[in-house]
Amino acid sequence: MIENLIDLEEVSTDKLETIIKLAGEIKNDPDKYKESCRGKILATLFYEPSTRTQMSFQAAMMRLGGNTIGFDNPMNSSVAKGESLKDTVKIISGYADIIAMRHPAEGAARAASMFSDAPIINAGDGGHLHPTQTLTDIVTLYNEVGRLDHLKIGLCGDLKNGRTVHSLIKTMSHFEGNEFILVSTPDLEVPGYIKSILKASGCRYSELYNLNEAMPVLDVLYMTRIQRERFSSEEEYKRQSGIYVLDTKKLSLGKGSLKVLHPLPRVDEITSDVDKDPRAVYFKQAVYGMYARMALIYLMLNKPVEKKAQRHITENRVHKCDNPSCITRREPYLPNAFKNSGDMLTCLYCDNRMLI
Amino acid sequence: MIENLIDLEEVSTDKLETIIKLAGEIKNDPDKYKESCRGKILATLFYEPSTRTQMSFQAAMMRLGGNTIGFDNPMNSSVAKGESLKDTVKIISGYADIIAMRHPAEGAARAASMFSDAPIINAGDGGHLHPTQTLTDIVTLYNEVGRLDHLKIGLCGDLKNGRTVHSLIKTMSHFEGNEFILVSTPDLEVPGYIKSILKASGCRYSELYNLNEAMPVLDVLYMTRIQRERFSSEEEYKRQSGIYVLDTKKLSLGKGSLKVLHPLPRVDEITSDVDKDPRAVYFKQAVYGMYARMALIYLMLNKPVEKKAQRHITENRVHKCDNPSCITRREPYLPNAFKNSGDMLTCLYCDNRMLI
Amino acid sequence: MIENLIDLEEVSTDKLETIIKLAGEIKNDPDKYKESCRGKILATLFYEPSTRTQMSFQAAMMRLGGNTIGFDNPMNSSVAKGESLKDTVKIISGYADIIAMRHPAEGAARAASMFSDAPIINAGDGGHLHPTQTLTDIVTLYNEVGRLDHLKIGLCGDLKNGRTVHSLIKTMSHFEGNEFILVSTPDLEVPGYIKSILKASGCRYSELYNLNEAMPVLDVLYMTRIQRERFSSEEEYKRQSGIYVLDTKKLSLGKGSLKVLHPLPRVDEITSDVDKDPRAVYFKQAVYGMYARMALIYLMLNKPVEKKAQRHITENRVHKCDNPSCITRREPYLPNAFKNSGDMLTCLYCDNRMLI
Repeated sequence: MIENLIDLEEVSTDKLETIIKLAGEIKNDPDKYKESCRGKILATLFYEPSTRTQMSFQAAMMRLGGNTIGFDNPMNSSVAKGESLKDTVKIISGYADIIAMRHPAEGAARAASMFSDAPIINAGDGGHLHPTQTLTDIVTLYNEVGRLDHLKIGLCGDLKNGRTVHSLIKTMSHFEGNEFILVSTPDLEVPGYIKSILKASGCRYSELYNLNEAMPVLDVLYMTRIQRERFSSEEEYKRQSGIYVLDTKKLSLGKGSLKVLHPLPRVDEITSDVDKDPRAVYFKQAVYGMYARMALIYLMLNKPVEKKAQRHITENRVHKCDNPSCITRREPYLPNAFKNSGDMLTCLYCDNRMLI
Repeated sequence: MIENLIDLEEVSTDKLETIIKLAGEIKNDPDKYKESCRGKILATLFYEPSTRTQMSFQAAMMRLGGNTIGFDNPMNSSVAKGESLKDTVKIISGYADIIAMRHPAEGAARAASMFSDAPIINAGDGGHLHPTQTLTDIVTLYNEVGRLDHLKIGLCGDLKNGRTVHSLIKTMSHFEGNEFILVSTPDLEVPGYIKSILKASGCRYSELYNLNEAMPVLDVLYMTRIQRERFSSEEEYKRQSGIYVLDTKKLSLGKGSLKVLHPLPRVDEITSDVDKDPRAVYFKQAVYGMYARMALIYLMLNKPVEKKAQRHITENRVHKCDNPSCITRREPYLPNAFKNSGDMLTCLYCDNRMLI
Repeated sequence: MIENLIDLEEVSTDKLETIIKLAGEIKNDPDKYKESCRGKILATLFYEPSTRTQMSFQAAMMRLGGNTIGFDNPMNSSVAKGESLKDTVKIISGYADIIAMRHPAEGAARAASMFSDAPIINAGDGGHLHPTQTLTDIVTLYNEVGRLDHLKIGLCGDLKNGRTVHSLIKTMSHFEGNEFILVSTPDLEVPGYIKSILKASGCRYSELYNLNEAMPVLDVLYMTRIQRERFSSEEEYKRQSGIYVLDTKKLSLGKGSLKVLHPLPRVDEITSDVDKDPRAVYFKQAVYGMYARMALIYLMLNKPVEKKAQRHITENRVHKCDNPSCITRREPYLPNAFKNSGDMLTCLYCDNRMLI
């Protein structure tokens, strides 16, 4: 059904709904699925540590009856001996039935999928994509709110650098009647290309600099962290940061049916006493993440596409991607490749756009 | 049956006997239990590494048919991103059915149990408690000696700082007719509060400075390590340390029915040639530890209390625990709480006592 | 059937053929074996990291229905607390049914087998032995070439320091009619004792300094890496190294039926474009390694020798092994022991030879 999950944008809304519904079904009747991946192995290749995400994948596989191998520390792995991503993936895909990969370079999961004999799940490639987080978010919304359309969705915090925020906006813009209220400092607004997507999709959106103003109308509030170093000065930090912290006082302005999400880990952008409020669903969200991953793994292993397609890449021998974090910068055997639109090249790996 | 195992003192003698007997039963008929936790997940959250203990828990869970997730390196975990213990436990208890936690701060397991949706086993919280080690010790005694009462129990080494020693004394003082022979340097005697417990329980005890003198009367000898830095000087170390080393010569003074235990790892407090003596049961003891943990996990998962009780804590807004190693010092959202007895407050987390 | 696998030279050709055939059978019908080690535990004790080998063992055990415990980082383990190899092995062999051990000291696996209550597989002991790599190589040859005899086998690269090369030569010299073409720089020729073995076995061999010359006659080409620091100077490296790199041009000189193997990881001794050639079987080789380990574990656990033999070692109280990398240098309780032949002592642990 799904060959690889590199970018959630490549998954049709139909397939997305199949995953979401299956996640709910597994949650309601876990016994039905507890032997469904018996004898299968998931490899979690984490080139940078992310304990939480890795444990979520491991628990998901084990609750389907499968087992896991993997690493979480690149310095302990053969990588330290200078092995290419290609070779590692080629070999591990001979040991395992499915691979979840986290890598600091943008486009790494796409590159891996070109060589892997097993399906690849992108568990985060640098600041680029993290599709199972977005899957987690929408499974949470579907189950906690009851629908994915006609929602007033607030997003608060660092909207400039947060890949989970961008991905959630893109995905939710495919469902009808959603409206976005974007709450951040002027310096940390969503990038222009996200606004373009919103405009193209016909979704309404507004930008605010104060969380209090947004609270009363929201159906959903998606909180994220603003890192201290994003502020221009320590004074600016002290003056501004409280505006973007959700505490019980701000929460009291929200509707009774509001749902508060957070990709976690949080630091101090939601105060601890908010946790007791039934509208705070971020801990439930983490558990939905496990069910979302169970549904995904189940579908990728039990309803596979007939045959792993050969990906035909047209190599571009003239241009190289100019994003210093792109995987093509680290792995020189990778063919440079772009999607072409007018005078714009978009890197096939990291989605970096270059004017030619 | 048992909700959490934080402190062995909270487990009734009846329940303790149930665990001990089940451990023996599993050892004799492991096949009967090998699928009893099929589909269940144990999370081993080791905030400081302890390979042996972690592997013992993992092997225990696997021999019950279950599986494990976890970490052993706090620098690789989300902890490094500043996540609170509360958030980590909250989330992991959504992935796993039971948690074994090791943490450098005293009272950490108690704190974790306040937020966890899954039962917590304390696998060591700083210098405070390590209940599954004591469980291991008494399962060994019951199986190797045949009884837990009317024993002459020698304890040798650093009796001042050894949490396993204190816990074993407390537990064995509940059984009738046990007598304790405490062998250490004058500087490393058991603390006063342990002597008070012994007096209150009516157990006889004596203190000796020479292992040779103690040997002839003992039914059990529990050896522990004296760290070199505990001695006042290098000369003192050289002069004294040999007195507390068990070698074949000292062992020859012991009864034929003597059993020698050690929590391991040892360094040089038992010479290697003692290993061949059938009275040396410390390697068997490690294996009993696995069976003890199997029994514990089995009972916690298969005969759970009806509903995880809400722990009602009465917050003390006046006093703070003054133990610098207490978990309340690291995790500021934890409510300060004490047991009150006259002018003495005992911290609910780390058992630190303060006069008010 | 096999008690321990320390040195492949100790395995009879009959038993070797049993393992090889079983590996092929498991590959063809994995479902038949997928529950054959249900409930069993493999401990992977990796005193130095080797992610690939460890994952191969883990995947092998899981595909037999078993599970694994272990460590890959000595600094995280009890070793850091100064525990002896003996104690660690003694205890872990009480938790696990079989142990795969990797250790930087030569002879470590042999030493471990003297104390273990479970069978030991040597997963690499320093620069000494790595028998499951050689098993992997011959399982690959048997399945890809169709036979193990009457082959013209080229070995290219650093033939002086490569333990996998020496072990493969020794093993293949037991099969009839094999001929070896040894391709290296003059400084990196195979050691004299390997040539003696070849002569004693009656195998033909020749030495060449240029891979191109060897290519046309080979049935098998076994590539290995020459580390840059093996060359006498940077200039020498630049001048020479290309001669020992397999690229598509050199490969075009080879027969259509040639098979190219490599123990992996590779760095740049085989160019990436060679991967597409069907004669390149090194990625398949990695997968054969998993099947080889499955066969080995299956036979060691399901057809065990009646009783783990007590190894009787005659201690040599006069001589000590003078190899600074020998395990006896690190673990002082180990009895020195040698095989005696004329005025030559061969260390029982690390095979170091000393004249007396």
